Amino acid sequence: MLGRLNHVAIAVADAEKAAKIYGTAFGAEISATVPLPEHGVITVFATLPNTKIEFIQPLGADSPIAKFVERNPDGGIHHICYEVPDIIAARDNLIKEGARVLGDGQPKIGAHGKPVLFLHPKDFSGALVEIEQASEIEQS
Amino acid sequence: MLGRLNHVAIAVADAEKAAKIYGTAFGAEISATVPLPEHGVITVFATLPNTKIEFIQPLGADSPIAKFVERNPDGGIHHICYEVPDIIAARDNLIKEGARVLGDGQPKIGAHGKPVLFLHPKDFSGALVEIEQASEIEQS
Repeated sequence: MLGRLNHVAIAVADAEKAAKIYGTAFGAEISATVPLPEHGVITVFATLPNTKIEFIQPLGADSPIAKFVERNPDGGIHHICYEVPDIIAARDNLIKEGARVLGDGQPKIGAHGKPVLFLHPKDFSGALVEIEQASEIEQS
Repeated sequence: MLGRLNHVAIAVADAEKAAKIYGTAFGAEISATVPLPEHGVITVFATLPNTKIEFIQPLGADSPIAKFVERNPDGGIHHICYEVPDIIAARDNLIKEGARVLGDGQPKIGAHGKPVLFLHPKDFSGALVEIEQASEIEQS
């Protein structure tokens, strides 16, 4: 089952600056700026009534988004994240349907502290898709 | 005020084919395929609990997304659409904050039959942003 759109992630050179107009022009709630060195990003969130926009900025030499921001100096939509009730079941279903799971296929703990996987953009219309274990169900 | 994320629009060469895996692998509800000749697109929706993914395919020689799909043959995220309670107030606020509104600045009737405006990607971290009049409030 496809759950909520958890967030749209926009990668930029300066996350705080990028989020600012969502506050000033739209009156959206903007989070604090949080460095996540273990994920190689700095994050800022803009909260919408039904989801959130996550601004991510490269942090450190090995940041997984460094090349994206180099190629897109103005920034750009980096990925979209869907919640799934059971990430293992979702992964197995995706593989059965011919979709490619990036990395070794084992969920990693993502920036929100939940298991995540990334799916190949070529199987999702050019969009990098993250699936995240929904918080409602615990993984055993 | 920033309202709901109405949709994420993914532009592709074949909208029906692109939406398919959202149904087969994720069990999402997939809409019928609807040609909108007056907007130069064919649309298919995948419904999530909190928003929707809109697949758009070029229709006709003057399709506004023809060039995007030419440049991105695998497809790609084309824009994100936010609802606003009052599109004129939102526009004026955006301009006051230095954001550029595309076209002549007058809302057009979008693919969902509601007034919309598009904002310059350079002012939104490289993301093309559509704002749409929320359905809850009528424009006078």
